[in-house]
Amino acid sequence: MTLDFWFEFGSTYTYPSAARLREIAAAAGVTVSWQPFLLGPIFRDQGWNDSPFNLYPVKGSYMWRDVARVCDGHGLPWTRPSVFPRNGLLAARIACAAHDAHWLPDFIVAVFAANFAFDREIAEADVLLDILHGLGVDGGPWLERAQDRATKDRLRAQTDRARELGIFGAPSFVAGGELFWGNDRLGDAIAWALGGNDAKAT
Amino acid sequence: MTLDFWFEFGSTYTYPSAARLREIAAAAGVTVSWQPFLLGPIFRDQGWNDSPFNLYPVKGSYMWRDVARVCDGHGLPWTRPSVFPRNGLLAARIACAAHDAHWLPDFIVAVFAANFAFDREIAEADVLLDILHGLGVDGGPWLERAQDRATKDRLRAQTDRARELGIFGAPSFVAGGELFWGNDRLGDAIAWALGGNDAKAT
Repeated sequence: MTLDFWFEFGSTYTYPSAARLREIAAAAGVTVSWQPFLLGPIFRDQGWNDSPFNLYPVKGSYMWRDVARVCDGHGLPWTRPSVFPRNGLLAARIACAAHDAHWLPDFIVAVFAANFAFDREIAEADVLLDILHGLGVDGGPWLERAQDRATKDRLRAQTDRARELGIFGAPSFVAGGELFWGNDRLGDAIAWALGGNDAKAT
Repeated sequence: MTLDFWFEFGSTYTYPSAARLREIAAAAGVTVSWQPFLLGPIFRDQGWNDSPFNLYPVKGSYMWRDVARVCDGHGLPWTRPSVFPRNGLLAARIACAAHDAHWLPDFIVAVFAANFAFDREIAEADVLLDILHGLGVDGGPWLERAQDRATKDRLRAQTDRARELGIFGAPSFVAGGELFWGNDRLGDAIAWALGGNDAKAT
């Protein structure tokens, strides 16, 4: 039983999902497959050149209050980032280069925390090197691999695949051929991965 | 402890909330205050002349699959309406005119079921008369009251109030000064009405 977790490092609501996912999936006996992609090209498909939370300020105001409330409810640290959305391109490329590294989930969770708990500029190589160092990983070679043609192609293919799956936001979950969108739906996605519709759980 | 339930009869995800709300609120000891409004003017504020599910077909495709799945999970009948979104103006005016009628919640739940379980044209007076008749209510006088100047003003004031509250979609819930958006958040809104942040519940 596998759950594909489609994430974009700039996405606010993906932070609480990323932070909770391993524990929830492990408790359910579900394997997580971590799937980086970029929301920017998908937003551009819809005619948006920015996050809809910036383009539609009423929705944005709600989101800032709501995501703080959600994090508080889960006991997760939260700091509204001073830049939004942050550019997650380099971090997503590292995640692609490291697709089979044992430390990949730790890296992903740490990048989300850097952005949304510590207000760090995750677009900067130095911040990402620091995160990798904190995981005991020598980051230099990974930064180089992140810029390889093959890595760039891999991330582009991930975003194309997200589009094919009908993904239009993050976090998105795919389980048993079903797409679920939003941090609210993590429980439903886990239930579907286990083989049934348990939407009642929310 | 009161929960304000802001609803628009054309809204798909409001149907499962309306259908479940009384039972969930009663079990929690929370009183529901039924607040009709129109989404059309609020969507127009955002530059949309149609439902975003029609304007953004990728999001719409997801919604049609998701709302069917949600209803299935709750054991609610679901039929994709042959017209979307349906015009809920007349039904909302009846709800405004009947704001203190004992049958108001039954009427609201029945209109949502007519639209989303039975694919009936809730914009038509005959359909609404039939729903009222089914509740043992003589609908004729209510249709007249629905067209009173005072009723029309009341619905306009409701929509203005929704705007002031920062409402941008439906269903929306307001409890203890906090706004929650989406069928997914009914449980959180009930928990907030009871006096605490229990976002962990979802």
